[in-house]
Amino acid sequence: MLTPLVRAIAVAAPLPSLGDNTGDLDRLKKVLAPQLGGGMPVVPYQRLSKVAVRFRAAGFAGAAIINDMAGTPVLVDFLSQPPKVLAGMALDLGTTHLEATLLDLSTGAVLARADLENGQIRFGADILTRIHHAAKDEGLAELHAAIIDSVNQLATELAGRAGLAAVSEIRALSVSGNTSMVHFFLKLNPCHLCREPYIPMVNAPDPCLAGELGLAIHPAAVVWLLPSVGSYFGGDLISGVLASGLDQQPETCMLIDVGTNAEVIVGNREWLIACAGAAGPALEGGVARMGMRAGPGAIEHVRIDPTTGEIGYETIGKGKPKGLCGSGLIDLVAELYLTRQIDIRGKFRPQAAGERLIAGSEGYRFVVVEGKDAADGQPVVLGQVDLDALMRSKAAMYAILTTLTNQVGVAFEDLHRIYVAGAFGRHISPRQAIVLGMLPDLPLVVYEPVGNSSLAGAQRVLLERQARERSLALAGKITYIELNVNQEFMLRFSGSRFIPHTDHALFPSVPFFDGE
Amino acid sequence: MLTPLVRAIAVAAPLPSLGDNTGDLDRLKKVLAPQLGGGMPVVPYQRLSKVAVRFRAAGFAGAAIINDMAGTPVLVDFLSQPPKVLAGMALDLGTTHLEATLLDLSTGAVLARADLENGQIRFGADILTRIHHAAKDEGLAELHAAIIDSVNQLATELAGRAGLAAVSEIRALSVSGNTSMVHFFLKLNPCHLCREPYIPMVNAPDPCLAGELGLAIHPAAVVWLLPSVGSYFGGDLISGVLASGLDQQPETCMLIDVGTNAEVIVGNREWLIACAGAAGPALEGGVARMGMRAGPGAIEHVRIDPTTGEIGYETIGKGKPKGLCGSGLIDLVAELYLTRQIDIRGKFRPQAAGERLIAGSEGYRFVVVEGKDAADGQPVVLGQVDLDALMRSKAAMYAILTTLTNQVGVAFEDLHRIYVAGAFGRHISPRQAIVLGMLPDLPLVVYEPVGNSSLAGAQRVLLERQARERSLALAGKITYIELNVNQEFMLRFSGSRFIPHTDHALFPSVPFFDGE
Repeated sequence: MLTPLVRAIAVAAPLPSLGDNTGDLDRLKKVLAPQLGGGMPVVPYQRLSKVAVRFRAAGFAGAAIINDMAGTPVLVDFLSQPPKVLAGMALDLGTTHLEATLLDLSTGAVLARADLENGQIRFGADILTRIHHAAKDEGLAELHAAIIDSVNQLATELAGRAGLAAVSEIRALSVSGNTSMVHFFLKLNPCHLCREPYIPMVNAPDPCLAGELGLAIHPAAVVWLLPSVGSYFGGDLISGVLASGLDQQPETCMLIDVGTNAEVIVGNREWLIACAGAAGPALEGGVARMGMRAGPGAIEHVRIDPTTGEIGYETIGKGKPKGLCGSGLIDLVAELYLTRQIDIRGKFRPQAAGERLIAGSEGYRFVVVEGKDAADGQPVVLGQVDLDALMRSKAAMYAILTTLTNQVGVAFEDLHRIYVAGAFGRHISPRQAIVLGMLPDLPLVVYEPVGNSSLAGAQRVLLERQARERSLALAGKITYIELNVNQEFMLRFSGSRFIPHTDHALFPSVPFFDGE
Repeated sequence: MLTPLVRAIAVAAPLPSLGDNTGDLDRLKKVLAPQLGGGMPVVPYQRLSKVAVRFRAAGFAGAAIINDMAGTPVLVDFLSQPPKVLAGMALDLGTTHLEATLLDLSTGAVLARADLENGQIRFGADILTRIHHAAKDEGLAELHAAIIDSVNQLATELAGRAGLAAVSEIRALSVSGNTSMVHFFLKLNPCHLCREPYIPMVNAPDPCLAGELGLAIHPAAVVWLLPSVGSYFGGDLISGVLASGLDQQPETCMLIDVGTNAEVIVGNREWLIACAGAAGPALEGGVARMGMRAGPGAIEHVRIDPTTGEIGYETIGKGKPKGLCGSGLIDLVAELYLTRQIDIRGKFRPQAAGERLIAGSEGYRFVVVEGKDAADGQPVVLGQVDLDALMRSKAAMYAILTTLTNQVGVAFEDLHRIYVAGAFGRHISPRQAIVLGMLPDLPLVVYEPVGNSSLAGAQRVLLERQARERSLALAGKITYIELNVNQEFMLRFSGSRFIPHTDHALFPSVPFFDGE
C-alpha cells in the first residue's frame, strides 16, 4: 500500500438540501475525513474557491486531491473523475545535471525518465562560483530562475514522454539535492554555506506548493525536499542512505557519494557519522574538456593493451564515442598508469606515451579516440589539465575516507559493505579506482554500486510516507564532521596526491613504479 | 493565561559553530518546540527566508512570532526584541457598519476602538443587491476590494489611536460576520447563498494570512473567521452564543440578534436550534432617512408626553441630535402608538398627530426634532416609508420567534432568559419593543441586553484558543431551520403586521386601540 505525497480520493457526498445546509467545502471535508483516518483536511486560502466551485460543478462527487504536507492532509483540488494517472516527479537536483523520473503514484511504476544539464552552469560550473554570483544584485533571482526553468523543461519533457495532456498534470514533486542547490531552488541566500561555520539557512524546509516557486507543474502540487544535514551534506546523501538501507544494517557499512563533492557516511542501525569535502567536478563531466555525463556516446570503460598500447573502449549505447564519463575517465587514467604512460604524480611521460600524446599551448593532450572514429568528428582527448583535476579529486576522496574512518575508529577492513553512489558510481569499476588510490584496497566483493541513489531516494519519498518520516529522522541522527577546517584532512590530502599513494603499503595489490 | 491567535515567544538559541551545524531555521524551530508543547512549528514558504534572515541578523535571540492556525503553530516572523505591544484586531464585519477593537494580546486590554460604514454600501444597502452585483463581471472583485479597503481604513485608524508605529504592527485579525459578508471578505462567489437550498461555499474556512487577502495589517498576520452555520446564520451569531454563554446554560434560553437579518437561537447546554430571516435593515440605520448607527448624536430614547404631546429625547453623547438609532426608532414608534398618533397598522393618524406631521410627495413625515434644535440644522424626521420598513422588521422578528419556539415545542414562558444582541440591542428598551409587538410580552427581567456580541465573540476568539475550538464545535452542534421557504413563518408574518398583533390576547400588557 503506497502512501504517496499526493492522493486522489474518490468521494460521493450527500446532496445539499434544505435539511442539510452544510457548506460545500465543509461537506467535502466531512466526507473525506473518515478516509483520511479521521483527520479533517486543511484547505489553503488560494485553493479554497477553486476546490469548492469544482466540487459543486462535479455534482458533489468525483475525486479529491489531497497533499500530504508535513503529516497534515491538505485538500488542494477536486476533479469530476478520478485521474487516469496520478503522476508525480522525482528529481535529482544535481549541480551539473538534473535527472528525473515520472512515477504513477498509485502503482509506483516509472512512466518516463529524462535528464538535463543544470541551466545554472552559465553562471558557473561549480557551486562556489554560483554562491558568489548570488551575492550580486539579482544574482540569486537569476540562479533561482535558471534552476526553476531547467526543472520546468525536464517536467515538460517527462509529461510529453508519459503522454500526459499537460505538464500541469504532474501533481507532486520530490527533490533530492545538495544543500546549495536546495537554497537556489527555494531562492534562499546561500552566502553562509561557504563561510565558517558553514550554516545553511534551513536544513529541513517544510513542504510548499509548486505555484509558490514558479514551477510549471500543477500550481497546487506539493513540493517535498529531502532534508540536509549541513552545508556540505545534502538531501542527496540522505537519499543515498534511504536507498542503500545503511541506517538499517546491523554491520558497519559505508556509503560514498561522489558528485561535485565527495560525501561519505559510515555507520549502522545504531549510529551514523558523515563528512564531506570538495572533490572537484572532474568526475561529473562538467570540467574535463572531453568529460561528459554518463549517457549515450560516453566512453564508460577503457582498456589499454600493455604490449601493443592499443586502446579498447565501450560506449554507453554502443554508438560512436563523444567523450568520457566519470567511470571511463577513471579506467583510462588507471590504464595509463598501469602502462606507465603517466607517472605516480599523474603527469604524462612523453618517452612512454608515443604518438597519441600531442604537445600544445596548454600542455600535453592524449588522444583517446581519433576524430575519424568519434561521433562528431572531434577527437576524444585527455589533457594534462584534466588529469590534474582528476588527481585532486581522487586525493580528496581518499583523504576523506581515511580521515573519517580514523576519527570514528573504524578500520577499512571492518567495513562490511561499501556502497558506491552518484554519477561516479553508476558504471564504475572499483578495481580501477583502487589502482588510482581513490578507494581503499579491499576485496572487490565489499564494493556495491547503488547507482543514482539521489534519484532513488527521491522516488522513495514520493511514494512512501514512512520514507519521508525516516529521512527526517535520519537527518537528525547523523553526526556531521566538518572537513573544511580539518587539519588531519589537509595532511592526508597531500599524502594522497600520488598513484596510488605516497605510502604504497596501503595498496598492496597495486603495482608501484618507483624511482622515475 | 491567554492563548491568543498570535504569540511572541522569547528565545535565545545556542550560537552556530563547527560542532553544531544545524540550519538557522532548524535551530530556531528546535529551541521553540519545548515552548510550544513539543510541537514543531511549520514555516510557510513565503515567510521562510524572512524568518531565517531576521533570526540570524538578531544574533539568534529575540522573539519568534507564532500564529495559531487550525491548532498548528506556524512560525511567521522573528523580531530582535519582543514587541512592546503585540496587537490584534477584533472585527464585527457588519453589512452596514464595521466595528472593531484593538487588543493587547498579552493582557487582553482594549487599546483602541473604531467603527466605520461598510464601503460596500455604494453597491447596495442590502446584502441581496450586493449578491446580485457580485454576479457581474468584476462585481465580486469590486465588493471584495471595497470591504478590504474598509477594514484597512479601520485598522489604520485603530493603529493610530493606539499609538502603534504602523498598521502593519497589527499581527492578528479575528472576524465575526454574517455568511455573505464572509464570502465577500474572502472573495468567494456568494451566488448560492440566496438560492434554494441556500448553501454557502464554506461555513468554516481555515485561517489564512492577511497578505493573501490584501489586508494592510502585517502580511503574516493570522486571519481567523468565526464559522457560519448556514447562509443566513453566520459567525456573528456564533459570537453571540460565545458571548452570552447560551451553550453552557442548564436552563433553556434564547438569543436574539437583530442586524440586517433577525437571527434567533434557542437552546441550552444540551441542544441548540436556530433560525434566521430577513428583518430588513430598518433598525440598523441604513435605510430610514434619519436612521443612523448608535453613536454620538443618535437619539437613543424618546418619550412623548401623553397630555401635552411634547417630545423628550436623549442623545448618545448628550449633544444635539443628528438622527435616530434603532432603539430611538423603536421608542419613538411605540410612543407614537401609545399616544395614538399612529394606528395599529403603523399608519400616521393626521387627526391626532398635529402640526408635527407634514404631508409631502412621499407621504407623511413626522418632525421629531426641528432644524433649529438639531446638530446640523436639518430636522430629524420619521417618514411613513420608514414606519412601513419598521413594521415589516418587527413583524418578521415576532414571526421568527413564534415559528422557532413552536417548531421546537417551547413556550415563551419557558424561557429562562432572552439575550438581546446586535445594533438593535445595545440601548433597546424591551418594554417599547413589546409595545410594538416585536418581542413577546414577558416580564422585563427575562430580557438581558448583551450589546454587540458579534464584536465580543471576535474578541474572545482573538484571545482564547478554547473559544476558537468552542466556536467550531458550536457551529457543528446547532440545528438550523430554514425560514425562507417556511409556510408557517409566512402566515405568522402576516399576523404580526399590526401593533402589537392581530391576536392582541398575546400582548395583555399592551393597550389595544380597536375600531379606528
